[in-house]
Amino acid sequence: MSTRGTIGELREALLARRLSPLELVRSTLERIEREDPALRAWVHVDGKAALAAAEAVDVTRGPLAGIPFAVKDVIDVRGMPTRHGLRTEHARPAVADAWCVAAVRAAGAIPIGKVATTPYAFRDPPAATRNPWNPARTPGGSSAGSAASVGARHVPFSFGTQTGGSTLRPAAYNGVVGLITTLGKIATVGVQPLAPTLDRVGILCRTAADATLLMGVYDPEVLRAPTPKRIRIGFARSFQNSVVDAAVARVIDHALAGMSVEDIALPALVIEGAVHWEDIMCYEVARLLRPSLGEEAGSVILAASLKRGAAIGYAAYADALAYRERARAELGELLSKFDVIAHAAAGSPPDRSTTGHVQLPLSWPSTALGLPAITVPVGLTPEGLPVGLQLMGRHGEDAQLLAAARFVEEAVPFSAAPRAA
Amino acid sequence: MSTRGTIGELREALLARRLSPLELVRSTLERIEREDPALRAWVHVDGKAALAAAEAVDVTRGPLAGIPFAVKDVIDVRGMPTRHGLRTEHARPAVADAWCVAAVRAAGAIPIGKVATTPYAFRDPPAATRNPWNPARTPGGSSAGSAASVGARHVPFSFGTQTGGSTLRPAAYNGVVGLITTLGKIATVGVQPLAPTLDRVGILCRTAADATLLMGVYDPEVLRAPTPKRIRIGFARSFQNSVVDAAVARVIDHALAGMSVEDIALPALVIEGAVHWEDIMCYEVARLLRPSLGEEAGSVILAASLKRGAAIGYAAYADALAYRERARAELGELLSKFDVIAHAAAGSPPDRSTTGHVQLPLSWPSTALGLPAITVPVGLTPEGLPVGLQLMGRHGEDAQLLAAARFVEEAVPFSAAPRAA
Repeated sequence: MSTRGTIGELREALLARRLSPLELVRSTLERIEREDPALRAWVHVDGKAALAAAEAVDVTRGPLAGIPFAVKDVIDVRGMPTRHGLRTEHARPAVADAWCVAAVRAAGAIPIGKVATTPYAFRDPPAATRNPWNPARTPGGSSAGSAASVGARHVPFSFGTQTGGSTLRPAAYNGVVGLITTLGKIATVGVQPLAPTLDRVGILCRTAADATLLMGVYDPEVLRAPTPKRIRIGFARSFQNSVVDAAVARVIDHALAGMSVEDIALPALVIEGAVHWEDIMCYEVARLLRPSLGEEAGSVILAASLKRGAAIGYAAYADALAYRERARAELGELLSKFDVIAHAAAGSPPDRSTTGHVQLPLSWPSTALGLPAITVPVGLTPEGLPVGLQLMGRHGEDAQLLAAARFVEEAVPFSAAPRAA
Repeated sequence: MSTRGTIGELREALLARRLSPLELVRSTLERIEREDPALRAWVHVDGKAALAAAEAVDVTRGPLAGIPFAVKDVIDVRGMPTRHGLRTEHARPAVADAWCVAAVRAAGAIPIGKVATTPYAFRDPPAATRNPWNPARTPGGSSAGSAASVGARHVPFSFGTQTGGSTLRPAAYNGVVGLITTLGKIATVGVQPLAPTLDRVGILCRTAADATLLMGVYDPEVLRAPTPKRIRIGFARSFQNSVVDAAVARVIDHALAGMSVEDIALPALVIEGAVHWEDIMCYEVARLLRPSLGEEAGSVILAASLKRGAAIGYAAYADALAYRERARAELGELLSKFDVIAHAAAGSPPDRSTTGHVQLPLSWPSTALGLPAITVPVGLTPEGLPVGLQLMGRHGEDAQLLAAARFVEEAVPFSAAPRAA
């Protein structure tokens, strides 16, 4: 029995008693010990607590009972240090779980440990984590360890965060599913804040079916939406092709072939919004983090953004918020004509000197406007690098977005695995 | 120039240079010193920082420039201790502002200090704070100090929180406006969590116009909705009258006379939901707080709820969430026929031995279902106690709710003040 399966596969094996929670956790810990010296996704593993939880769990109690998971190191897990991607040696253990963690723990899931992030989940390059598909390429950021640990099949799901593109893009680079739900649907209690009107918890896993199961812990409505027989896709082709390489564009074309697709142009307000989204983010980050970080930020890109944010006055911020409202209204109108708006989630992953944030334009529309979005792996480039199709849904309609993602997943099955796994 | 005015009045005086920010903060500090030994709303005042901010502020920079405010003591303010309503002597100063505070500070407002709450913002009776309208009556809870400090005109606005009825009810008892916006619209970063799918930041102030101005800092869309000439009100009369005393019901009838009102019955799923809302709250509180509180909770009602919550399994929680979805859908259908659903926010305030939480049924529908709601003072009972009309709006339509509240405020002006003020 492979213990590298999806949540769906592992739950079936656990319920059929073909696998015990203890065997699953033991084998998870073993492969982390064996493979992580090369992958470098994990920054803290609590094997003792995980084994104790595995011994205690009743697999019939809760939809995630016995399933191991990883947590980005800007999210609190009771009893584990939260180091925010810093090299702090003496961080104290968190006294309580973040809400995203508490909810899946109560549904029976077992936290294995913390995974690598860029400092404060910002854009400075990750120090260590490798992309499991090609160690010379970036795993993306800031949720580097969250995406790589799932991509390498160490665990079937993990939590990341997203303020710009920190879940959707690493999901694409690592060949996994990445989900951000409508802003506010999963409370960010216990998560290091960056910019509260943008910050979201991200869910990383292997399939859209698993993502639905996970989101069901927070919002049972998503469990009741049937997978549709057909979806109407607005394809933002020219927007996509202004960012991604031809190899990725070809995989996307191939994936969408045979579906009900119409080429669309995103509203100019959305495409040209980047400077406003940056203003909103920097203004908020500076007001929340600057007093505590002071000059110790250490990271070059973060320090520059704090400085930029501190110089933005209230009037400019209010203008940016008003711009966002207008952009949201225009995109909402376009979204009313389709089930989802689709395009590549990212181009091919660049080398390890960057988190790939030059591809951020592809994540900004859903992030900036608070809309739900999901990355679904749909194929490999000739270089053997995974390609993610990103679907963006209507505000509050997470159930419909997940249903559309399951449709895509069934139409374009993705079964490739990185060599190491 | 009175320094006990509303935000609108004070801003006008500041901009016309009839009042300086320094005079305003000085006079605020003086009246707190003079009156708070009787009112007991404040638990921490930082006069030095407030005077320094007043000296530095440019009244033309930001819509709240120079306006003093109070913060419930479960919400972080940079440099001030957060004691969560406990008698902790040695709480460390918070390193950063909560987002709700950071945003109004950036818009120019000046935090004066922290105000009293029940322990952990739960239901155990407040130790000290008096109702400014009648010191023998409860100020309500848990946002006791937030409502009393505004009711007594110490400051023109404050922040509270709401998980059950902790903003809407104290607002009514203290003759002030209390606003909870659609769940998630104001991020709860830096606020002590209780139950993340229920927790909201509450805004307390004197008028619906002020509430609009404050909410505009987070969501500029609310500033653009015009005050309507007429609104359609669904009046939940029998629901209201199952909770409130006749004196309050008569004030409400008088206030609604002449408006476009239709008596409605709330859906049975909403009225009968209390046990489910309690299950959701206790389940979440237990998972977030119990590990850190252990047996030290100290408060009888909180301890009982933690125990209840710990005994609720995942399946029962999931059932309660599904029930909530159905109730939300049914109430949403009813709300589509009206601009707002209205009823008294509370009955007459009971004596000081309780926070009045027996009147919680009036707050549960909007709270449990994540809907925006506002309490607007509309008159006094023959005993001279204030009465609040509560308006509940559609999900996400905070702008329309605030516009309706301004309509009510203009139709039923409320100018009474407690004797002490």
